Amino acid sequence: MFRPEIKVLDCTIRDGGLINNHLFDFRFVREVYKALSAAGVDYMEIGYKNSRELFSSDKYGEWKFCDDDMIKKVMDGIESQTKISIMVDVGRVNLDDVKPASQSPVKMVRTACYVKEIDKAIHMANHFSEKGYETTINIMAISRDEGPELNEALHQIEEECKTDVVYVVDSFGSLYQEQIEELVKRFKNILKTKEVGFHGHNNQQLAFSNTIEAIIHNANYLDATVYGIGRAAGNCPLELLVGFLKNPKFDIRPILELISSEFIPLREKIEWGYIIPYAIAGMMNEHPRAAMALRDSDKKENYREFYESLTNTGLE
Amino acid sequence: MFRPEIKVLDCTIRDGGLINNHLFDFRFVREVYKALSAAGVDYMEIGYKNSRELFSSDKYGEWKFCDDDMIKKVMDGIESQTKISIMVDVGRVNLDDVKPASQSPVKMVRTACYVKEIDKAIHMANHFSEKGYETTINIMAISRDEGPELNEALHQIEEECKTDVVYVVDSFGSLYQEQIEELVKRFKNILKTKEVGFHGHNNQQLAFSNTIEAIIHNANYLDATVYGIGRAAGNCPLELLVGFLKNPKFDIRPILELISSEFIPLREKIEWGYIIPYAIAGMMNEHPRAAMALRDSDKKENYREFYESLTNTGLE
Repeated sequence: MFRPEIKVLDCTIRDGGLINNHLFDFRFVREVYKALSAAGVDYMEIGYKNSRELFSSDKYGEWKFCDDDMIKKVMDGIESQTKISIMVDVGRVNLDDVKPASQSPVKMVRTACYVKEIDKAIHMANHFSEKGYETTINIMAISRDEGPELNEALHQIEEECKTDVVYVVDSFGSLYQEQIEELVKRFKNILKTKEVGFHGHNNQQLAFSNTIEAIIHNANYLDATVYGIGRAAGNCPLELLVGFLKNPKFDIRPILELISSEFIPLREKIEWGYIIPYAIAGMMNEHPRAAMALRDSDKKENYREFYESLTNTGLE
Repeated sequence: MFRPEIKVLDCTIRDGGLINNHLFDFRFVREVYKALSAAGVDYMEIGYKNSRELFSSDKYGEWKFCDDDMIKKVMDGIESQTKISIMVDVGRVNLDDVKPASQSPVKMVRTACYVKEIDKAIHMANHFSEKGYETTINIMAISRDEGPELNEALHQIEEECKTDVVYVVDSFGSLYQEQIEELVKRFKNILKTKEVGFHGHNNQQLAFSNTIEAIIHNANYLDATVYGIGRAAGNCPLELLVGFLKNPKFDIRPILELISSEFIPLREKIEWGYIIPYAIAGMMNEHPRAAMALRDSDKKENYREFYESLTNTGLE
């Protein structure tokens, strides 16, 4: 009944870090790693590999840089089959910072890019593949870039890139299930030698259902986060995804325990989830930037005014 | 692009009343009616028509009984095309309490029943149809009753009942989109002279996506509530549904304003929405009863223990 090819990637620390400048403390990250390992989750994405030359180590926490030594300390003494993943953005990583896989605790490197950056992303993914990592290319903001350039990018990946997986990323949480169906089918059709992945955002409470839709159409790499944590509206809740999947290797109980002990208290301190301005941004296919600014202002509950500010902007 | 046959029914006061014994104050109910009218919502379900002989008027608010005079006071002076609906349960209504439609502010009477009660529900729906009301039959807990009895009930409705609409009701919030597809297609296939409706519960954040799935397969009557209010996990959020539908008669702005002014403060006082024990109940295809009891106890965040209490019950 289950599809053994399906892999679940938890990006709690990586995507959640976008809310708090990657300042999760060491104990918390270990608790997450421990629970994901016990739950049988395939990958844990622990942060970004950003260049310390581009970002201040004073402002950002460890998980924006992901030094191998820190990762080893997280893993130390915990029995686990969960592989560690890191994410890199085009233009924000020094390739020489990434050691060969044989010398690193990291197993997977994921390159995030927009369609227009595909040449750079292919170069980077090939570089990491050659260093011995599993690799993915995550095509962001795809709801803004569904035209012929996307097809061209996919053909180029299929022909020139060693990457194992290519992700549909619904950065704005704006896609409905028919659109997921169309995109995943298109990806599968062009990327004959690659796996397809899906990363949703939960602006309209569709991250989980869109992930199911992606599964139905044969996407095998699925991103999720504990209790849906992530920037703005957050992501597909890992507990729902694991509750849905039938693979007996998964165990939801350590995740439930982790939510009780760590995420309920955390949610009192930092905000994510179903919040109307993020829902509006999703409906409008907009970056959550303006909604995030609203939530930081004294107009945080002025939803109608916010909606009108997005719709009344003439573009003639 | 839009389907003019689609009707949106808001059941904020009716389903929300299950959280607070139908004790919404009069001003609040008028604010909801005003906003739904301005938003172009087709129906507002204002409560249950329960017999005052069966339920105490001291314990329950007006919206458990829905006297016509109270409804008229809610509507008084508000310009509106929104029709008023009331719900009746099999065995809890005195049919003589429902006056002929020509003497009532109510336009629609919806009969809620389980599959095994279908004979009674048909009798009741015919009674209300003959009194001049639009009528629906809402088949509850359908995730527990998908076998041959359901088909038999649908055939019986098609042959014996004057009802205009028959609803798929996912009472436990346990259905995934493939199941919605199958059920709505089955309903449409048997109920050749009826419209099909969908009422979701949001335990697994699937109420909205399942409503979209029902739309795709030609369900035309769609239930939702403001900010997803409703017992336990709540329902499909009206603001998301109206944001999705393309019919130009709908205007999301009055709903956004209503959420800001009334529902954000209300949510501080009463609980509904994405809460892990309700998600677990949904995964398990269980009534939210046990989860509601947990939320009222001092173990409200003990998710793992709650999960185990549901799974470790031997039934051999």
